[in-house]
Amino acid sequence: MLHARLARHVHFGDCDPAQIVFYPRYYIWFDQATENLFRAAGLNWEEMFEPFEGGFAGIPLLGASAEFKAASKMGDDIEIESWVDEWQDKTFTIEHRVHNQGRITVEGHEKRIWVVRAPDRPAGIRAASIPAEVKARLSGD
Amino acid sequence: MLHARLARHVHFGDCDPAQIVFYPRYYIWFDQATENLFRAAGLNWEEMFEPFEGGFAGIPLLGASAEFKAASKMGDDIEIESWVDEWQDKTFTIEHRVHNQGRITVEGHEKRIWVVRAPDRPAGIRAASIPAEVKARLSGD
Amino acid sequence: MLHARLARHVHFGDCDPAQIVFYPRYYIWFDQATENLFRAAGLNWEEMFEPFEGGFAGIPLLGASAEFKAASKMGDDIEIESWVDEWQDKTFTIEHRVHNQGRITVEGHEKRIWVVRAPDRPAGIRAASIPAEVKARLSGD
Amino acid sequence: MLHARLARHVHFGDCDPAQIVFYPRYYIWFDQATENLFRAAGLNWEEMFEPFEGGFAGIPLLGASAEFKAASKMGDDIEIESWVDEWQDKTFTIEHRVHNQGRITVEGHEKRIWVVRAPDRPAGIRAASIPAEVKARLSGD
Repeated sequence: MLHARLARHVHFGDCDPAQIVFYPRYYIWFDQATENLFRAAGLNWEEMFEPFEGGFAGIPLLGASAEFKAASKMGDDIEIESWVDEWQDKTFTIEHRVHNQGRITVEGHEKRIWVVRAPDRPAGIRAASIPAEVKARLSGD
Repeated sequence: MLHARLARHVHFGDCDPAQIVFYPRYYIWFDQATENLFRAAGLNWEEMFEPFEGGFAGIPLLGASAEFKAASKMGDDIEIESWVDEWQDKTFTIEHRVHNQGRITVEGHEKRIWVVRAPDRPAGIRAASIPAEVKARLSGD
Repeated sequence: MLHARLARHVHFGDCDPAQIVFYPRYYIWFDQATENLFRAAGLNWEEMFEPFEGGFAGIPLLGASAEFKAASKMGDDIEIESWVDEWQDKTFTIEHRVHNQGRITVEGHEKRIWVVRAPDRPAGIRAASIPAEVKARLSGD
Repeated sequence: MLHARLARHVHFGDCDPAQIVFYPRYYIWFDQATENLFRAAGLNWEEMFEPFEGGFAGIPLLGASAEFKAASKMGDDIEIESWVDEWQDKTFTIEHRVHNQGRITVEGHEKRIWVVRAPDRPAGIRAASIPAEVKARLSGD
């Protein structure tokens, strides 16, 4: 699988009154890291809304979770390592590891679903099979 | 002019390591307060993208500013009072006052422009005259 | 168990380019909902850092997760229902349910740990038994 | 004056339903850019809370403003250029310029005040003269 890494400096405003990273911040970084992983695979989100057959409409979340093993604080330089862990037909799982000074401090998991435009549906979208090209690129083939 | 008030409880996650509200948070509240002011005038943003002649496309910011007179902290109950201060043809200015225990702690100002859809323009939008109905409703007429 | 409810209006700025709530936003609301649950139990975070024996230092996250069953969008009025689901000696689990028009759209879970000041430790904190008073209040006794 | 530059990729989650950067986001970047400017001057915020005479307690905002000249959108690579524009005895002004593809798209301004610990004051802080060393470092001397 293709692994991507996203560097982040922990800023003052990322932290809460307990002087550590405010935990929802990690999910913002996970979303950025997933976008970064797709970019590393040549799949830029801002360009993807046209070319894929069936009308790509996004990869919304079915679930997300994280285990927080150690806190990060203002001034730390962290790195988020991300890769697709498992493919299903229409869904896939992304793993995130937050590295801080050689230690894994957070383990994150996102389950996402491939959706395409479906003007006849109330929400305007429906789940669809993940294109083989997308699987191949994110697999690093 | 119509004045609207938006109540906010200052939460743990609104505050920074200095134990006070992280200043960009006020601009998030200003945007919410502007949306709330329009709602109080019967102009719900989520419903406005169709009915107005010319194809309403939003009220993006031309400028925003704030003076911070006193800090607010976790547990405080604040209220943001908002009103249109001045109308021009295509632009308008919104005033925000953050009240905390009878004191005005922040004064905010937003200058926004009325834009409509313009498929022939690069950005897809163009400035337009603010509809008389919008001015009337926000004026409290 | 004591159940608390936190009302939220979904604002423009809560949503992403896909026109639905940006998913990390739910974790910000979960943190606010947990703070609100403690408040409903007479345990205001901003007042808790002194009175409890052993020097209360917070309830950091060990883990958090959510299942997203349906999207919410700008203009929706949602409510987050929260309660302690399980007590261990030093840790506890909080359940969150996001209600939108009579439907549960998100189920969230937070595992938190009770920590007290420990100036001799590198991080300045250590895990401690949750005070009986805290358990009783959040149990609604 | 010392100029610092902070690169930012505009992510999906930085943008709002209008498909452009949600405007309060710029103030978060300004705060990060100010922290980055201090860092470029050898003044790391996380290390500053001890060494300066008088007990450095931060540089809270007195005011902030921005003019938005053009929107940025998902996938854009922007850069925030920052410098101290003017020194007063206890206050100073920081200028921020957001560059996007050779164009200045946002001009931001922050007025901040130097505060030190003052346990006898209600807020626990008081304004103080900016140390000569800080002025010299940020002036690039």
